[in-house]
Amino acid sequence: MYKHTVQYYETDKMGVTHHSNYVRWMEEARVDYLYSIGMGYDKLEEQGIVSPVVGISVDYKKTTTFADEISIELRVTEFSGIKLKFEYTMTDKDGNVVCTASSLHCFLHKDGSFIRMKKEFPELFEMLTKELEK
Amino acid sequence: MYKHTVQYYETDKMGVTHHSNYVRWMEEARVDYLYSIGMGYDKLEEQGIVSPVVGISVDYKKTTTFADEISIELRVTEFSGIKLKFEYTMTDKDGNVVCTASSLHCFLHKDGSFIRMKKEFPELFEMLTKELEK
Amino acid sequence: MYKHTVQYYETDKMGVTHHSNYVRWMEEARVDYLYSIGMGYDKLEEQGIVSPVVGISVDYKKTTTFADEISIELRVTEFSGIKLKFEYTMTDKDGNVVCTASSLHCFLHKDGSFIRMKKEFPELFEMLTKELEK
Amino acid sequence: MYKHTVQYYETDKMGVTHHSNYVRWMEEARVDYLYSIGMGYDKLEEQGIVSPVVGISVDYKKTTTFADEISIELRVTEFSGIKLKFEYTMTDKDGNVVCTASSLHCFLHKDGSFIRMKKEFPELFEMLTKELEK
Repeated sequence: MYKHTVQYYETDKMGVTHHSNYVRWMEEARVDYLYSIGMGYDKLEEQGIVSPVVGISVDYKKTTTFADEISIELRVTEFSGIKLKFEYTMTDKDGNVVCTASSLHCFLHKDGSFIRMKKEFPELFEMLTKELEK
Repeated sequence: MYKHTVQYYETDKMGVTHHSNYVRWMEEARVDYLYSIGMGYDKLEEQGIVSPVVGISVDYKKTTTFADEISIELRVTEFSGIKLKFEYTMTDKDGNVVCTASSLHCFLHKDGSFIRMKKEFPELFEMLTKELEK
Repeated sequence: MYKHTVQYYETDKMGVTHHSNYVRWMEEARVDYLYSIGMGYDKLEEQGIVSPVVGISVDYKKTTTFADEISIELRVTEFSGIKLKFEYTMTDKDGNVVCTASSLHCFLHKDGSFIRMKKEFPELFEMLTKELEK
Repeated sequence: MYKHTVQYYETDKMGVTHHSNYVRWMEEARVDYLYSIGMGYDKLEEQGIVSPVVGISVDYKKTTTFADEISIELRVTEFSGIKLKFEYTMTDKDGNVVCTASSLHCFLHKDGSFIRMKKEFPELFEMLTKELEK
């Protein structure tokens, strides 16, 4: 499971973690996860695949602050070959859920045209389909 | 309408604005708006009101990049005295919608207990109710 | 003169602006200045010029916080055709100096080799030399 | 030694790590170091000690980018009881120095008045003096 320790520069004058940082931690966890299943950004880039974020949704459950260690669990919850959805659960050291979130991604060629992954990258298609079934 | 010019440090190696920054611009526009209707953060703080973000949702429609000028329109779309919802529409100079988003907020006393705004701050309750009707 | 209003997300749990943000404001002011003298980043890029930051130095004189309006004055203080140095003075609304700083830049071709500006871009060389004399 | 892996959101459209992030990594390494010698921020705060950054200086030697693992070594190089100076050396996985930097700090009571550490916090004074001699 991916872990992020809240940095001083991530807090705000309310004394807690600024809410925008959770969006960045989602990316950290996603990068780590894709790398672990053999789909690192470097590999995607080599193959000319760009994968922008098309949507995010975040529910803040409990504030966190400087030096807190946050565990981020994520799962693939939708994958059609066109769009990919991740869901995230963030917990603190005591196991309290501090945040739940989701992000939606698509896959593009470098020229901006959509990739039909099943046809063009059948191996990646298999990998992500398997992750969905977990 | 609030305007934000995309900074170089807000771009990423894909050559576009990093998606986490839109969440920050939502805050910029919200702060500006609340100030304009007489509910600046300083005023809320003076009265012992804390207003954390409890949820956000963002749909990215079109990439933006360095030096783009983004216009951010926001409206109050829900207000019950307990929760306050804003909706945002961001457009580029050509009038293209680049992002739509929403954020949900609650109101707390400094000790973390919920504020019943209608009873405790009837003036603020009126102000936000009026905004809702616009 | 360039102005930056401190954003909520730029504060930290000490209740003041996090010191890393001043480095970003230096960039904002520099971009604005270069654009104003006809050397916008877009123009540099078109001509295949990359201008990385090779060094910065910042002296924090007085804390600032959310909603403060900071004025940033900058001047070219060294220019040899190889290296370019800017000096910055940041003041608050009451005219107090809150921060002084400098940044050092060089000019590279896209392949990373140094540009001899006097020879290769005499027009830019003239422009920056004039700025130095101000 | 403190390690930081460059995040995607820390890169910019030049394809490299944005220079402002190194200032944040200096803080990460400093927090980690102070904690390791028993001077965690929580402990300082408990004792009513505030330690703002009064100056930084950064020399960028070599660009870094997404997914690079940066090692950050730091040392106390000046300590008088009034001011504390750290020096930092950042290296990449191949041992190349990518950045050297320094930061200067002072110690204040919560009311903003200077702390005479030798007199008021002799134990901390001893600890930092020992670090200086290393």
